[in-house]
Amino acid sequence: MKKLLLASTALIGFAGVAAAEVAIEGTAEMGFTGGDLKETQFHNSYTINFKMSGETDTGLSFGATYRLDADGSSEENQNPVGDNGTVWISGAFGKLTLGDTDGALDWALTETAMGTAITDEGTTHVGYSGNGDNYYDDQVLRYEYAFGDFGVALSVEQDDGNSATSTGDGDPMIGLGGKYKAELGGVDLSFGLGYQTGDTLRYAFQGVNFLDAIGVQYVSVDVLGVSAKAAMDNGFSAVVNYVTYDYGSSVPDLEHYGLGLGYEMGALLVHANWGKWEIEDFDSFDSFGLIANYDLGGGAILAAGYASDVSTDDGDQDQFSLGLSLSF
Amino acid sequence: MKKLLLASTALIGFAGVAAAEVAIEGTAEMGFTGGDLKETQFHNSYTINFKMSGETDTGLSFGATYRLDADGSSEENQNPVGDNGTVWISGAFGKLTLGDTDGALDWALTETAMGTAITDEGTTHVGYSGNGDNYYDDQVLRYEYAFGDFGVALSVEQDDGNSATSTGDGDPMIGLGGKYKAELGGVDLSFGLGYQTGDTLRYAFQGVNFLDAIGVQYVSVDVLGVSAKAAMDNGFSAVVNYVTYDYGSSVPDLEHYGLGLGYEMGALLVHANWGKWEIEDFDSFDSFGLIANYDLGGGAILAAGYASDVSTDDGDQDQFSLGLSLSF
Amino acid sequence: MKKLLLASTALIGFAGVAAAEVAIEGTAEMGFTGGDLKETQFHNSYTINFKMSGETDTGLSFGATYRLDADGSSEENQNPVGDNGTVWISGAFGKLTLGDTDGALDWALTETAMGTAITDEGTTHVGYSGNGDNYYDDQVLRYEYAFGDFGVALSVEQDDGNSATSTGDGDPMIGLGGKYKAELGGVDLSFGLGYQTGDTLRYAFQGVNFLDAIGVQYVSVDVLGVSAKAAMDNGFSAVVNYVTYDYGSSVPDLEHYGLGLGYEMGALLVHANWGKWEIEDFDSFDSFGLIANYDLGGGAILAAGYASDVSTDDGDQDQFSLGLSLSF
Repeated sequence: MKKLLLASTALIGFAGVAAAEVAIEGTAEMGFTGGDLKETQFHNSYTINFKMSGETDTGLSFGATYRLDADGSSEENQNPVGDNGTVWISGAFGKLTLGDTDGALDWALTETAMGTAITDEGTTHVGYSGNGDNYYDDQVLRYEYAFGDFGVALSVEQDDGNSATSTGDGDPMIGLGGKYKAELGGVDLSFGLGYQTGDTLRYAFQGVNFLDAIGVQYVSVDVLGVSAKAAMDNGFSAVVNYVTYDYGSSVPDLEHYGLGLGYEMGALLVHANWGKWEIEDFDSFDSFGLIANYDLGGGAILAAGYASDVSTDDGDQDQFSLGLSLSF
Repeated sequence: MKKLLLASTALIGFAGVAAAEVAIEGTAEMGFTGGDLKETQFHNSYTINFKMSGETDTGLSFGATYRLDADGSSEENQNPVGDNGTVWISGAFGKLTLGDTDGALDWALTETAMGTAITDEGTTHVGYSGNGDNYYDDQVLRYEYAFGDFGVALSVEQDDGNSATSTGDGDPMIGLGGKYKAELGGVDLSFGLGYQTGDTLRYAFQGVNFLDAIGVQYVSVDVLGVSAKAAMDNGFSAVVNYVTYDYGSSVPDLEHYGLGLGYEMGALLVHANWGKWEIEDFDSFDSFGLIANYDLGGGAILAAGYASDVSTDDGDQDQFSLGLSLSF
Repeated sequence: MKKLLLASTALIGFAGVAAAEVAIEGTAEMGFTGGDLKETQFHNSYTINFKMSGETDTGLSFGATYRLDADGSSEENQNPVGDNGTVWISGAFGKLTLGDTDGALDWALTETAMGTAITDEGTTHVGYSGNGDNYYDDQVLRYEYAFGDFGVALSVEQDDGNSATSTGDGDPMIGLGGKYKAELGGVDLSFGLGYQTGDTLRYAFQGVNFLDAIGVQYVSVDVLGVSAKAAMDNGFSAVVNYVTYDYGSSVPDLEHYGLGLGYEMGALLVHANWGKWEIEDFDSFDSFGLIANYDLGGGAILAAGYASDVSTDDGDQDQFSLGLSLSF
C-alpha cells in the first residue's frame, strides 16, 4: 500500500536529504453483490489516496491526506468525489489534525467490525454504528497526546454556517476521549471512553435526517461511549461497544449496543458483528454482519460479506457480496 | 509514458522487494481545430492515468486502472471526469477484467483507425465505428485466454438497473470473440471475429439515443462482426472491418463497413480510413478521416487530422486539427 | 515541493535514461479565518499538482500542468475542481504555452503581493488587482522569448464561442509584454510593461460581471500597464504597479494603482500592499492587505494575513487568517 512512499524513502536515503513528498496509494474492488434491495450485479470501484508528508527544520512532522473516491456504480464513478481531506502537525506536544477526521469519541472507541467486504456488509447493516461524527459539516479539529499505554484526545466541530441547512447559531460539538492498552496473561486488552456534547444539525439513521421531517433545525446532544477489545494469542478477538445519546426534549434519546467477534488463522479471517439501536419509547433495530477474508498476499484479499438487514423498513432486507479487495 | 513505473521498478530492484504500486501516466494536447461546425480555435487537453498493479503470493497478477479526463473546452476542463475504470486479475487461467472495458466483440475486432489527432478526426467522423459497447452502463466483465496465435474472450454486460433509463429487466449482453495472428510471406496478418447478443437501452448515432425518440425502452440485438488486418514489412498496412446489427422489429437493422490504410516510414505515419453505416430501408452515412503523424521522440507527436463529415445533418460538415499530442 | 521530481531525476541519473514523467506536488492549509463577513472558523484546504515534462529527440522541452483544487469549505472540498491546465513547448525559439496561463500583460507585470495567507488576505481585498486575464474563457496562447536581461511575450485569448455567454463574435484579446532586469548599486530592479487590446465578455469587480446587469454582451478594451520592483540586499523590497483600462463608451474606464512593501529577515517575511480601483466619473475602492510569514523549513510556513476590506459594499468589511501553509 505504501510502496511509492517506500520508494521515496529509499531514494531519500540514497540522496541523503529529507524532503516533503506526495505518496500515492490506491484501492480497487472487483466482484458481485446482491440482496433483497438490488439485483445481483457486478461491482467495481476505485480510490486514489494522496498522502503528503514533511518535516520542519525543528523536527515537527506535518502532512495532509486527500482521497478521490470512485466507489459507486459505473456511471457514478465518472464523477470522483473528494474525501478524507485532513491536515496535521505533530511533535513532542502531541498531534493536531484538522479536516474530515474522527472526533475524540470516535477516535477513542474501537468499532466492532473487522476485515472487509467489497460492498461493506460488515459496517452498513441497519444495526451497526461507526460511532461517527457528522454533527455539522464533518470539519473536525482534534488534538491527541499519547503517554505510555494511555492516549487522550480533545476535539471540536464548529457550526461555521457553511452547511446548507446551518444558520451558524449551533453550539460547537466538543469531544473528549481516552484510550488505554494493557496485556493480561497473553491477552491484549484495549479500552476506550469518549464524551461529546453540543448541538447538531442531524438526527439520522441510514442517511435520512429526521430533523427535517419534524421541522427542527438544531438539537442538543450529550454522547457517552465505551468500548473494550480483547485479542488472544490463539487468534480470537472480541469487541464490545456501547454508546448513549441523550437529546433534549425535541427527539427521543438513543442507545447503541455493539458486539464483534473475530478469528484469524494464517491468511483466514472470519468475523461476525451484531448491533442494536434503541429509540426511547419507540422502536429498535438490530442486525448482524458476517465477513470472511482470505489474504492472497501482495495486497489482494478475497472477501465475502453478508448483512442481515440494510434498511429500516419492516422486515429484514439482506445484502451480500463476494470479490477481491485490492490495495496498491 | 511508463516512467514512474520504470522508476519504481528500478527502486524495487534496488530494495529487493516486489510490491503493489500506483504508477502515474499523463497525456496532453496542444494545437488548434476548426471546421464547418466550429470556429477555428485553440485546443488544449489533459488526462491523468492511475495504473495500479500487484501480485499475490501465488503469482497471480492483479491491477486496476482509473483515469481523470480534462479533454474538453477550457471551462469543461474545470470538472475532470473519471473514465476507463477497470479492475483485473490474471494468471495461467487467463485474464478477468471488470469495468469500463471492451466487450468480447470490440476486444476481438481491429478498428480501422491508426495514429492520432488532437481532436480525434480519425475516429469521430459520422461513418466511423469503434465497434463499441455501451449497451447499458458500460460495466463489462470480460474473460480472455490466449494460446499460441489464438485468443478468445467471453463477456457480459448486465442490465443492473443502475442506468438512469433502466428498469433492470433487459437481458444481459453476452459476447464471444476470437483472434488469430499469422505471418504469411513477410506479411503480419491478424483476424478477428465477434458475436454479441442481448438487449440494449440504446440505438444511437453520434451520441443521440433514438429509442427515446420512438418511445421504446429496450430492443434486442444480435451483433456479428469480422475484421482483418495486414501489415507489410515495407510499412504499408490495411484493415477491413464489417459488423452487422440485427434488431427485432422495433427499429431498422444496421450494417457497418470500414476500411483503413496506413503507411509508416521512419517517424512518419500517414493514414486514411473510410466507413459507412447503412440503415435498413432508410438511409446511409459514409465519411472518411485522414491522419498524418510525425513522431518527435520522447513522447511528442506532431499530429494533423481531417474528418470529411462529423454530423448526420444533410451535406458534409468537415473538421480538422493540427497540434502536438504528448505522452508522459 | 518538487520532491518526486527530484526523486525521479536522481533515478534517471541512476538508470542513465532521460524520460517523460509525471511529478506530483501538493499543498495543504490548516488554521482559522474570520472577519466582518464570516464567523471565525477553521480552514483546511488541499491542492494536488500534476507536472508533466519530457524532451523530444531534437532537444525541445515540452510539458503540461494540471491541478486539482479542494480549497473551499469542507463540503465544497468533496468536489475537486480542475485548474491551471497548461501545455507548453520550449527551445531555442522561445516558449509557447497554451491554456489557463497569464496573458502577456499579466506575464510582464509584477504583482504587489508577497508571501502567503491561508485565505489569501494579501490578494483578495477589494482594492487589489492581479492584472489578470479572463476576458473570455481563460484559454490563452502565449509566446515568450528571453535575451539577456530582457524578456518579451505575445499572447492571444480568442472568443471561441465555448463560453456560456459568448456568440463567438468578439475580437480576440491580443497582448504584448516586456520585462527588463538590472542591478544598480546593490539593488535588484525589475520593470514590466504590458498592453492588451480586444473585446471582452466581462466588466467585473469581485467576481460580479456588470455587463449582464446593463444588458451589454461585449465591450472593447485597451489595457496598458507598468510595474517596477526594487529588492535591496538588506531585505527590503518595493513594488509599484499601475494599469489603465480604456473601454468604449458603454461602460466607465478604470484605473488601478498598487503599491507593495516587503521586508525579509532570515525566516521572517512581513509585507503590506495597498491598491485602489478608480471608476471614471463614479466611485473608487481602496484597501490594504497585511502579511506575516515565518518559514519553519521543509515546506511549512506559519502565515498570518489581514485584509482591510473584502467587499464593494459600503464601509469596510475586513478579514483575517492565521495558520500553516504547507508545500509537498
